[in-house]
Amino acid sequence: MKAARYHARGDIRIEDIPEPELKPGTVLIDVAWCGICGTDLHEFLEGPIFIPAPGHPHPISGEEAPITMGHEFSGTIAALGEGVDDLEVGQNVVVEPYIIRDDVPTGPGTEYQLSPDMNFIGLAGRGGGLSERIVVQRRWVHPVGDIPLDQAALIEPLSVGHHAFVRSGAKAGQVAVVGGAGPIGLLTAAVLKAQGLTVVISELSAARKEKARSTGVADHVFDPTEVDVADEVRKLTGGHGADVGFECSSVNAVLDMLLDAVRPAGVLVNVSIWGHPATVDMQKLVLKEIDLRGTIAYANDHEAVIRLVQEGKIDLAPFITGRIAIEDLVDQGFDQLIHHNETQVKIIVHP
Amino acid sequence: MKAARYHARGDIRIEDIPEPELKPGTVLIDVAWCGICGTDLHEFLEGPIFIPAPGHPHPISGEEAPITMGHEFSGTIAALGEGVDDLEVGQNVVVEPYIIRDDVPTGPGTEYQLSPDMNFIGLAGRGGGLSERIVVQRRWVHPVGDIPLDQAALIEPLSVGHHAFVRSGAKAGQVAVVGGAGPIGLLTAAVLKAQGLTVVISELSAARKEKARSTGVADHVFDPTEVDVADEVRKLTGGHGADVGFECSSVNAVLDMLLDAVRPAGVLVNVSIWGHPATVDMQKLVLKEIDLRGTIAYANDHEAVIRLVQEGKIDLAPFITGRIAIEDLVDQGFDQLIHHNETQVKIIVHP
Repeated sequence: MKAARYHARGDIRIEDIPEPELKPGTVLIDVAWCGICGTDLHEFLEGPIFIPAPGHPHPISGEEAPITMGHEFSGTIAALGEGVDDLEVGQNVVVEPYIIRDDVPTGPGTEYQLSPDMNFIGLAGRGGGLSERIVVQRRWVHPVGDIPLDQAALIEPLSVGHHAFVRSGAKAGQVAVVGGAGPIGLLTAAVLKAQGLTVVISELSAARKEKARSTGVADHVFDPTEVDVADEVRKLTGGHGADVGFECSSVNAVLDMLLDAVRPAGVLVNVSIWGHPATVDMQKLVLKEIDLRGTIAYANDHEAVIRLVQEGKIDLAPFITGRIAIEDLVDQGFDQLIHHNETQVKIIVHP
Repeated sequence: MKAARYHARGDIRIEDIPEPELKPGTVLIDVAWCGICGTDLHEFLEGPIFIPAPGHPHPISGEEAPITMGHEFSGTIAALGEGVDDLEVGQNVVVEPYIIRDDVPTGPGTEYQLSPDMNFIGLAGRGGGLSERIVVQRRWVHPVGDIPLDQAALIEPLSVGHHAFVRSGAKAGQVAVVGGAGPIGLLTAAVLKAQGLTVVISELSAARKEKARSTGVADHVFDPTEVDVADEVRKLTGGHGADVGFECSSVNAVLDMLLDAVRPAGVLVNVSIWGHPATVDMQKLVLKEIDLRGTIAYANDHEAVIRLVQEGKIDLAPFITGRIAIEDLVDQGFDQLIHHNETQVKIIVHP
């Protein structure tokens, strides 16, 4: 079958690889769509990062580059392994793409995203969504009902936004500021809006400002090159500041603005991945007793996210800005994200 | 009456000033002892910081330099203003030295420490503990029962440590790492120990290491110039890391160590006052989902702290390392703290 395989930085190949083997407790999925993630792009441009380099196999998967890529995917169940009796062939599903140890529990309230050596399907082995088929453990498979399969490919990044929302402790009726309207910023804003918050987005790119407005995820969009965003937030909140902030840009000026824009005893969640250390004005953190919280991926978020989409509280269609075939992954997909980053939100790939 | 008055950087004078006036709802206190705080030292060396400079009166107190200093003090009630009927002349008390607006509530659960323009008695006006007598609003007066008045002068900095503990959400049985064994680090450790935590202190000064050991506030004292403190903490915790960390040094290497030493989903409270921005490795914050929390002063902490001392769970005597007369404030008090900082914990002044 066809698969996009990461060999080394700048070297991703569409290859013919053996079909994955169905084992007891696993599910065979025909992949429908797979999104390209910023992480995939970083691996291509600067990696291997999450991907285990040759000679350094991942301690759980035992695999190393070349690795099949893709961790944001939807598909249809093609076969069920022995012992899997609560799913059906033909069901549409998404995959929570974790590689964690088999003995790490995944029930409600567990924090398996923090378990030792955690990594992701499509980055550290066990196949990927950028291939025709994949076999995954039952516990990572989530039926999506009647959500269209193209939109379902966005459940994974939407779950990142949902987990950031959960980490923030935010409640309906509160005011949130989202710094940066890239894919994760927009999807985080979509979750916040669906949960009943007033959402302010700070963004300077014209294309992204337009997307923040047209998707309806923001109640207010401010451009930090035009206004003092923290001042605008204070004006909107009777001088207090926002209840929660979400850093989705890995830009230090945005982090500074958010420390300024949240109210005393406010919460600031860092959602973005930083390639460099951040500079933090500790006096703001101290004098306002701000909580600066890290968030990584998701844990027990997929079911809630699928419900939000099924109930129509989040419309994922406007976030799909491109559809390509797997053969065009590098020349069209990565190229668009590198050179036309600001007009793209999510490009999905059909394998 | 005598008072230590801050005129400008490097210019603190012992002067004769008028007696304060007892008004309805206030309490006149004969000051027994007043501790010298690191903040006082910063005002002397680098200020005015909290102290309102001449021409810039504090918006609540309306006062500006010269200002009577001292905010860590104990004393005996000398007279009660009209309407104060739940205290008695002759009672020993401490003062929670806040200057906040009269309409800000101070009941349980309120966060008056975060109210606009909050400042401190002894820094922004309303008299200070470095004077013979002071008049304060009833709500800031806390009886201390039979706690000796010299030790009671340390209730204020101990409340800072207690508030940091409350902010951390730490529980008995957990493991805490305290970075830095200066006065606030030691007193924070004392609270943590009293609350049933296992306490690890990281400190490089020989004198402070000795104090951390001799006071019994630490179960383990590690020197970061001798061992990898985070590694040692992991060894003590079955590889997991500490549940909570407390940054009490405003040294970036200590903050780095704490990000490394706390477990996934751990909490790190910044207790120290930073004169410069901190560099934070956001990847650690993200991948471990750490909460980095600011804490300032105290709010509804004094009663709990007084109980801890009354019940014998914290012995404040070993933290008093000097006793001086107010006339010797600069020549002996500040001089010791500037030149023999590491052997001193708390110097208390008798006015």
